[in-house]
Amino acid sequence: MNTERTDAQPAVTVIGLGEMGFALAGAFLEGGHPTTVWNRTSEKSGPLVAKGAERAATVRDAVAASPLVVLSVKGNATARALLESAGDALAGRSVLNLTDGTSAEARAVAEWVKGQGAEYLHGQIMTIAPGIGGPETVVFYGGSHAVFDHFHPTLQLIGGRGTLISDDAGVPTLYGMAVHGTMWGALNGFLHAAALLSSEGIAVQRFLDDAGPSVTALLGSLPVLADEVDRGEYATPYGALQHHRPSVKDLVRESEARNIDVEFPGYTLGLVDKALEDGHADDSYSRLIEHFRRQ
Amino acid sequence: MNTERTDAQPAVTVIGLGEMGFALAGAFLEGGHPTTVWNRTSEKSGPLVAKGAERAATVRDAVAASPLVVLSVKGNATARALLESAGDALAGRSVLNLTDGTSAEARAVAEWVKGQGAEYLHGQIMTIAPGIGGPETVVFYGGSHAVFDHFHPTLQLIGGRGTLISDDAGVPTLYGMAVHGTMWGALNGFLHAAALLSSEGIAVQRFLDDAGPSVTALLGSLPVLADEVDRGEYATPYGALQHHRPSVKDLVRESEARNIDVEFPGYTLGLVDKALEDGHADDSYSRLIEHFRRQ
Repeated sequence: MNTERTDAQPAVTVIGLGEMGFALAGAFLEGGHPTTVWNRTSEKSGPLVAKGAERAATVRDAVAASPLVVLSVKGNATARALLESAGDALAGRSVLNLTDGTSAEARAVAEWVKGQGAEYLHGQIMTIAPGIGGPETVVFYGGSHAVFDHFHPTLQLIGGRGTLISDDAGVPTLYGMAVHGTMWGALNGFLHAAALLSSEGIAVQRFLDDAGPSVTALLGSLPVLADEVDRGEYATPYGALQHHRPSVKDLVRESEARNIDVEFPGYTLGLVDKALEDGHADDSYSRLIEHFRRQ
Repeated sequence: MNTERTDAQPAVTVIGLGEMGFALAGAFLEGGHPTTVWNRTSEKSGPLVAKGAERAATVRDAVAASPLVVLSVKGNATARALLESAGDALAGRSVLNLTDGTSAEARAVAEWVKGQGAEYLHGQIMTIAPGIGGPETVVFYGGSHAVFDHFHPTLQLIGGRGTLISDDAGVPTLYGMAVHGTMWGALNGFLHAAALLSSEGIAVQRFLDDAGPSVTALLGSLPVLADEVDRGEYATPYGALQHHRPSVKDLVRESEARNIDVEFPGYTLGLVDKALEDGHADDSYSRLIEHFRRQ
């Protein structure tokens, strides 16, 4: 590893100044790190340069400027191409790639970077740009323990709850997808519900004031479902699929009566009905994982 | 109202001894209430009679036995038919209907009951049977304030967090649907995610240990979305639909690569793409409510 990194506030390079990269560079500057930035279009760096950032003319110069090179760009193909353009300047650096993509793409970048004699850490940031630097902001890291440990104070500037979850660079993106996939499901269900409520003239905020704790409480079932999935045993004494069925059907009927889209609750009804047809009436909702596992 | 109801522990009748009705009758008995039960098949009442419950021979006898008549049966058509069979015994009673169904069905039962000279309260219980009586158990009530106030100590035996949310008997079921609809969306997303994680050999419980707070935190966005929906204004400076799009697409690609079902994330991708096509790239995810509103 590059010996510069033993500094308390090592130099950091940020490649990519989109919404997130811009926030990251600002956080490193505020944390007292010499910060070099590069972006495809240079005008984005203006406000950062005004705060003391160095604007690199080329990616190679940017990479050469710091022991820690942080990427936040659109897609790992772009990340790889930019790193390739740095040539032999990459050797001995530590790369923190915060670019979104699939687990296989993250792993491919990791392998290539390691092949260049650099170290690799992948990060999945679990907030939008204004959350950067927050004490509660979660970042899932996967890859080099050495990089994670060495740059820990710097990583804390990204988010206070950074965790190294795996030495596999592909795992953070899976964690991010799992959280976001759960969230999109919840948001779709919530917005469908909001359409129902507002069709009755009920303010959605008023509903949340009354019922928000119930929404949160029902998510308390996730660890139970996780345990069932991990064990591959779905039998449950209460709240089995046969008891979900009439309630899902009521939601479909209520939506039809109010001229609200029925595709989303209808999808759930289809999953439950299929499981009942397959003889799983007494099983927990977690049994539905078997539907998702086969394509 | 019937003057018997001024007793500290008024007599209570429970009609319907399914999983939930059985738990309710048990809670009333434990709370010291003279409790009368009726079920279509009488053998279910055995354990309750052993604890001191009266078994009524007919619904009419059951209704006549108590000032508060609690129904927990399969569907409001059944609830209505049972109450009709009580004839003029219903007049002067208070009916608490905990039967699932649509808002229109709850209102129809409420109107009919009031037409018989009885009072009506509808309740939506937000737990499974083992949660009955819990201090944190939520019940949404709609209908008669007088019934809610008069029988408050008795209602506390159902769940410690009982709230009268409306004088409209149809609203509790809408609240229940909104909570459960959000939950089913979240569970579908979570089980899809669990399929991804387990295809990588990651235990889902381990994921939740690391990432559970992130799931909960992302639900912290619900009040923001509710406010946007209530105002009908969707513009957002961060986390707009255009920024969701690549992440949803990554989830679809990751699912395809792992031979995991893509219909669920594909549905979300379709919603987001449609909104982008309609020119809502800079809007919050809450803009998607417009999709659900039209059929």
